[in-house]
Amino acid sequence: IDSATNLRRENKHGGRGESQPGSEGSNKRLDKAFVLQLAVWGLRGVTRVILANNPLCGVLIMAALLWASPWQGLLGALGVLASTLTAVITGQDSGEVTKGLHGFNGMLVSLLMGVFSSSGDWYWWLLLPVCLASATCVFLFSGLASLFDRWDLPVAVFPFNITILLYLLCTGPNNPYFPHHPAVPPGMLEANGTSLIAIQVIRGIPLGVGQIFACGALGPSLLILGSVLLYSPLLAVHALLGSAIGTLAGLSMAVRHEALYSGLSGFNGALGCMAVGGLFFTFSWRTHLLAIACAFLSAYSDIALSNMMGTIGLPVCSLPVTLVITLMLLLNGSLAAYRIPTGQVMAPERNLRSRSQWEAGNTEERESTDV
Amino acid sequence: IDSATNLRRENKHGGRGESQPGSEGSNKRLDKAFVLQLAVWGLRGVTRVILANNPLCGVLIMAALLWASPWQGLLGALGVLASTLTAVITGQDSGEVTKGLHGFNGMLVSLLMGVFSSSGDWYWWLLLPVCLASATCVFLFSGLASLFDRWDLPVAVFPFNITILLYLLCTGPNNPYFPHHPAVPPGMLEANGTSLIAIQVIRGIPLGVGQIFACGALGPSLLILGSVLLYSPLLAVHALLGSAIGTLAGLSMAVRHEALYSGLSGFNGALGCMAVGGLFFTFSWRTHLLAIACAFLSAYSDIALSNMMGTIGLPVCSLPVTLVITLMLLLNGSLAAYRIPTGQVMAPERNLRSRSQWEAGNTEERESTDV
Amino acid sequence: IDSATNLRRENKHGGRGESQPGSEGSNKRLDKAFVLQLAVWGLRGVTRVILANNPLCGVLIMAALLWASPWQGLLGALGVLASTLTAVITGQDSGEVTKGLHGFNGMLVSLLMGVFSSSGDWYWWLLLPVCLASATCVFLFSGLASLFDRWDLPVAVFPFNITILLYLLCTGPNNPYFPHHPAVPPGMLEANGTSLIAIQVIRGIPLGVGQIFACGALGPSLLILGSVLLYSPLLAVHALLGSAIGTLAGLSMAVRHEALYSGLSGFNGALGCMAVGGLFFTFSWRTHLLAIACAFLSAYSDIALSNMMGTIGLPVCSLPVTLVITLMLLLNGSLAAYRIPTGQVMAPERNLRSRSQWEAGNTEERESTDV
Repeated sequence: IDSATNLRRENKHGGRGESQPGSEGSNKRLDKAFVLQLAVWGLRGVTRVILANNPLCGVLIMAALLWASPWQGLLGALGVLASTLTAVITGQDSGEVTKGLHGFNGMLVSLLMGVFSSSGDWYWWLLLPVCLASATCVFLFSGLASLFDRWDLPVAVFPFNITILLYLLCTGPNNPYFPHHPAVPPGMLEANGTSLIAIQVIRGIPLGVGQIFACGALGPSLLILGSVLLYSPLLAVHALLGSAIGTLAGLSMAVRHEALYSGLSGFNGALGCMAVGGLFFTFSWRTHLLAIACAFLSAYSDIALSNMMGTIGLPVCSLPVTLVITLMLLLNGSLAAYRIPTGQVMAPERNLRSRSQWEAGNTEERESTDV
Repeated sequence: IDSATNLRRENKHGGRGESQPGSEGSNKRLDKAFVLQLAVWGLRGVTRVILANNPLCGVLIMAALLWASPWQGLLGALGVLASTLTAVITGQDSGEVTKGLHGFNGMLVSLLMGVFSSSGDWYWWLLLPVCLASATCVFLFSGLASLFDRWDLPVAVFPFNITILLYLLCTGPNNPYFPHHPAVPPGMLEANGTSLIAIQVIRGIPLGVGQIFACGALGPSLLILGSVLLYSPLLAVHALLGSAIGTLAGLSMAVRHEALYSGLSGFNGALGCMAVGGLFFTFSWRTHLLAIACAFLSAYSDIALSNMMGTIGLPVCSLPVTLVITLMLLLNGSLAAYRIPTGQVMAPERNLRSRSQWEAGNTEERESTDV
Repeated sequence: IDSATNLRRENKHGGRGESQPGSEGSNKRLDKAFVLQLAVWGLRGVTRVILANNPLCGVLIMAALLWASPWQGLLGALGVLASTLTAVITGQDSGEVTKGLHGFNGMLVSLLMGVFSSSGDWYWWLLLPVCLASATCVFLFSGLASLFDRWDLPVAVFPFNITILLYLLCTGPNNPYFPHHPAVPPGMLEANGTSLIAIQVIRGIPLGVGQIFACGALGPSLLILGSVLLYSPLLAVHALLGSAIGTLAGLSMAVRHEALYSGLSGFNGALGCMAVGGLFFTFSWRTHLLAIACAFLSAYSDIALSNMMGTIGLPVCSLPVTLVITLMLLLNGSLAAYRIPTGQVMAPERNLRSRSQWEAGNTEERESTDV
């Protein structure tokens, strides 16, 4: 956290430096500082995907992605940089940029474009649409923020979901330049009725956490889970719990075995459980039960919407969980008392502490992690 | 109405009793009172479906449903109880719960899940998703209420429509546990060109009122129409008029004969005509014409959306009429002067009286029936 | 402009005359005045489609439509009159009616119904749904205006897009009364791989401006472009630029040759470029770049949504560009400073002048052209 404060201080210096350029030597120093800042903003953006806000966790996640596939790691890094730079150029609020809020949508779009591309790895032409799609996310983020502000709702990953759907619809499976694999609906019947392998299903639970970054290998998934654990143990527990709930929901609806094995059934549940259990709501037994309900609802919505969009070969990515979390944040009644205002969201442990301090009568400075 | 006031007074006692439990004897009495209250809240919820608010009408409707099919009656009762209880547990506004606002969506979901299930009657496993889907409606109602409050719009049956679509998408026609019949789009061509039977079409008009509760038998439909007549003759006239308009719209678009005979063409029109003609707008010749326009628009939207969703085997239920009523409530211009604020909606006859009293300078207490 | 002021003054007289009818002679004079006003309101409505507001341009456009096809010209005129009259009857805000805000959606619906009808020209029965659909647009416009007011967003052509989709869904390709051609998705593979003809593609750029009015002939398209030029040269330049960008986007996604030749690839880009470049934003180099970005985004969204809706044989008309413009108007950050409030939008040249006068400290009366 000390290094983060340092970097933020540097960031202020850099901002001042841009408006008052000194000698050539200081200019070079500032350029270097800007590149360093951009890296930190990017790494913060990377962790926003798992609802965290910590550059160190970002390093771990980038390492996991590069381990799983260097090409995917490159695409992710390019996406987060392209969208952060677009935000700087289009003059978005600098506070949002420094918190990494303009990076995570671009990163997810880039990763998914890489995963769905059927041109194979190292198809360099893909970098062009990757940059454009990442830039589009900034416009969507900024526009949707104006819409959602009225209800104090976070924009979350709506821009990513809209952009990836538009991209996949634009190109189609048979596009001569950017072909992609069509998505298979989870409810499709298996060709040959093989029986379910229990160990594979259990292996799908940690994979569900990795699938948040479209990563389907066990090692990198565990590394990503580790970086969540580093940021907040409570969040990590909810991630695993949510992924297990998603797998359970998948089993109850008899989805394709492949969806269970690969962790695709779990990641919507994982995100839903993480967001409600401690992040946007103060942790307590009531919100814990709400988190479980949210995970189930996210998982079933995922199956439902995937079946619908799958009829035209489209995936739904994290649209179901984003819709369900938005619904949960809109809840009325006595549960709304536990909700933390979007601008004051921090790591679950700090939310808890801040709540108890607030109840004791004193407030402290907060590092917000609104997504 | 006297009994209703009594029950509400009991309800207040019950609420007080829960927080201050007395001796064991009074506890038992309170438990019994709670069960009685729950029944009244549920019966109010049942009548909310036809835009009424009266436990007696609810008894008639439950009788009609049990007459048509005991299994459907059981599902409906379970749905209304499950969602009302979920609302109590999740701490929803007690005023809304006592008015039955958290029951009707759950009831409709349960009825439709029973109708679309292809496992036949008395398939007990269906009770599990019925309870879960009814509970989901409460979350959707609460979340959407926060969204719609900005424009003083009622949530109406949006939660029901969203939940039933998600359920049907989740399971699909070939699900091993909960299979269902796919919906047939009304615009599909008839296999063999039989000519239309006029008497059957006319029989479809009262059936359109029954189809509001997914009930396709003539006797129970007339009983449901009777219960509307008991609540408000003006509402009953508009129900029949709307159903006739819906049938006319169906004829003009040459829909499948089956859709006309079963009353499925009529029920969207009936609901649209009822909502505008006296309920949400003060009755007058101008709003009567608006009600007719609303019925036509609802009926055509129903055909359009049914054709669209029918391509993937989904029904649209009452989504079209809900969208059209929402549009009508948003209207600007001189017609907006007739609109009754959502919190002050009552039976059409009382709306009229209250408006004339209000114009004479005095106001009275109102029993709201906002849906 | 003088004649416009005259007519507006007459309009006030007419309005007064309706409430206080004088002798029979003056009545006749007022009736004549009302017909004249209606014509002016209609012609203003015609120009609203290309984001202008000038009866003279409306005359040119009507001439272009009648030149292209007398039947289409008749349908367009009927649509604009039907919806303007519906607005008068339902008591919409008279300021909006006189500015032509209730005419352009009805006109577009009528034109598109004519284009998609497979019954051929001069099928008189089509006039019935044309009138009804045009009237529906007024309800949608009024309702959506209440929704969008919260964000100072224009309703634009959302009513047209919704109505035409509902109409096409209602009737379907095989309807016995009102059959229509299904739309072909632009991403569909060509049957025989013919090579692209460059001159035809370039010819598609001015045709893209004509396609805003569903007009596919070169002469009338140039006349429409001329009427835009008459209203505002800046708008005309952006129209051509946007159409070229749309064609470029189509080429990059390898759409059907027919879509490029007919100008269908270009018209979404043209509208997007016109709206951002000078109309809703003060013209400057930054907004000019934003206009180019908006044109690309509109064109790609058009391809994406057309591919999606094309799977069930539906067109998307101008829905993509309307969504993208709405997004652009919601943008936060430093670009939002260039945005002109919806009620103060004028021709680009006058926007610029008014902005510089405003910066000089004095304001002047504005003729608003909010769409």
